[in-house]
Amino acid sequence: MTKKRVLSGMQSSGKLHLGNYLGALENWVTMQEAYDCYYFVADWHALSSNYEETDGLKDNIVDLGVNWLSAGIDPEKSVMFIQSLVPQHAVLFLLLGMITPIPWLERVPSYKEKLENVTDRDMHTHGFLGYPVLQAADIVLYKADVVPVGIDQLPHLELTREIVRHFHNIYKTKVFVEPDAKMAEVKKLPGLDGRKMSKSYGNAIFLSDTPDERDKKTSLIVTDPARVRKTDKGDPEKCVAYAFHKVFNNAGRNAEIANDCRNANIGCVACKKELAKNIAEYMAPFDERRAKWAGRKNEVMDILRAGSDKARVVAAQTLAEAEAAMKIDLQKI
Amino acid sequence: MTKKRVLSGMQSSGKLHLGNYLGALENWVTMQEAYDCYYFVADWHALSSNYEETDGLKDNIVDLGVNWLSAGIDPEKSVMFIQSLVPQHAVLFLLLGMITPIPWLERVPSYKEKLENVTDRDMHTHGFLGYPVLQAADIVLYKADVVPVGIDQLPHLELTREIVRHFHNIYKTKVFVEPDAKMAEVKKLPGLDGRKMSKSYGNAIFLSDTPDERDKKTSLIVTDPARVRKTDKGDPEKCVAYAFHKVFNNAGRNAEIANDCRNANIGCVACKKELAKNIAEYMAPFDERRAKWAGRKNEVMDILRAGSDKARVVAAQTLAEAEAAMKIDLQKI
Repeated sequence: MTKKRVLSGMQSSGKLHLGNYLGALENWVTMQEAYDCYYFVADWHALSSNYEETDGLKDNIVDLGVNWLSAGIDPEKSVMFIQSLVPQHAVLFLLLGMITPIPWLERVPSYKEKLENVTDRDMHTHGFLGYPVLQAADIVLYKADVVPVGIDQLPHLELTREIVRHFHNIYKTKVFVEPDAKMAEVKKLPGLDGRKMSKSYGNAIFLSDTPDERDKKTSLIVTDPARVRKTDKGDPEKCVAYAFHKVFNNAGRNAEIANDCRNANIGCVACKKELAKNIAEYMAPFDERRAKWAGRKNEVMDILRAGSDKARVVAAQTLAEAEAAMKIDLQKI
Repeated sequence: MTKKRVLSGMQSSGKLHLGNYLGALENWVTMQEAYDCYYFVADWHALSSNYEETDGLKDNIVDLGVNWLSAGIDPEKSVMFIQSLVPQHAVLFLLLGMITPIPWLERVPSYKEKLENVTDRDMHTHGFLGYPVLQAADIVLYKADVVPVGIDQLPHLELTREIVRHFHNIYKTKVFVEPDAKMAEVKKLPGLDGRKMSKSYGNAIFLSDTPDERDKKTSLIVTDPARVRKTDKGDPEKCVAYAFHKVFNNAGRNAEIANDCRNANIGCVACKKELAKNIAEYMAPFDERRAKWAGRKNEVMDILRAGSDKARVVAAQTLAEAEAAMKIDLQKI
């Protein structure tokens, strides 16, 4: 039996952090065994929400590659590629845009949300409105059966499915695959201050942080604010460090820690030292591989280029089928 | 001194008629001498207003090529190419879309007009909204200095200029050329019934019509409706045939015809026979070449493919410059 195909991408819009690692990248690594995986750097998507500040975009692309390989993505098993090196994404984006009604795009929740929340730059562009159309092109070019998504991305995937059905209905030919959502079982990690971990909040541990930097950030994690002295009893459920322990420590030891915290038998400094040690252990295989890949950026780019060559073959084939269905293929004139 | 560059395109959305010949194609032929000309089949644009009925699109592409060559476009002098064979148009469309505010697009007069007037299909799509963005990409990829336009297309060209300035302003690098409009001196030809000549009105003489078909259509041109009998005096200004005479006959003879019409000295049948003869003379060189090219569609496609190869080289160079300005070029990572 052939494996089902998975497609997933990450925007090259910033440095990856520990939350991305646990929330997506670990899942990518796991899926490699059961699925035929296509993982791509969404560098064009990175422009849709930030077209003005493009200074770091190229570095981010290599960094993504470094982090993927360090996490254990195996280019022999999975195709790692860069969106902009496969121009078929732009062509199919254009073609699918021809049949996509604007109201479908305007009603995507994340579109309205961003227009409301981002006030420091103009998001009201043709490209940003078309974000889900480009995403649909990304997915259907590879006839992906499965797309791992978080709950906030479900409407995007539903739109992809809708565009696929619309296309099939107009052109009376089935070309694409309607992708299924795979809700990933995600280990939720807050930021150091308890809010969502995010580069823009300054509360993130980055995958590019050295073990020392990571330890230092761990020591700064916010604990129960009511526990001022070591002799005060704490509430682990109000402690961000404890939320981290839930991810990096086992349940038995966590029960002890919670008990010790409630009875002031363990201090926050010691508790976070133990956490730092656990994070270091958890991340040791990643750190080891990262030490190797971080210095080999040319090789990383070569891997991404070779993956893009593979992706292009698949994408060109699907695009040709789509053009034939639309009766606009010029091969046979 | 190097010649200035001209870019112009025609949608592959239907058969060309005599009005297109006089209104655009003749002008293209003339411009070949003074300019470095890039003429393209806008096959993607043809989808933006009619994505559902694509049956004839491929034939239309070849027909355009046949008509261009028959009109006297010389592939040794001008680059004749097909938009969809140059994927850089789609990539730059995507990139320019990222920086193009939606209100700029919504205020284009032809956009509002079509949304109001076309009621038999959904025009409210992402692709149709982006029509002027794709047009901007078409133009700036070739750094065209000059674009021949009719008055209704001036707002589109102004938008291209605006997008160019916006790009240069954001990325602090001058990559593109702000194209100037060249208002073509156009011979205005009405349809057989006096309305605008248009395929959809059924009042057009097509370039693919045989001389006989053309003569027959000429005999059906609507004359002054008040002149019922040959002995009635006519008003040439109310006669569509006279509007045709203005194009295909000389001023001296036209003054005689007008006088004879007003005094009922010439009948409508004879008048239109004379017109048919003049049209036939005017179109004789075209007819002769068309007889040759119409049977050589493979050769026509080869010319369009070879032109597309040339266009692709220019387009790739400009796209690379644009990507470098945006700091998203992956050549140098």
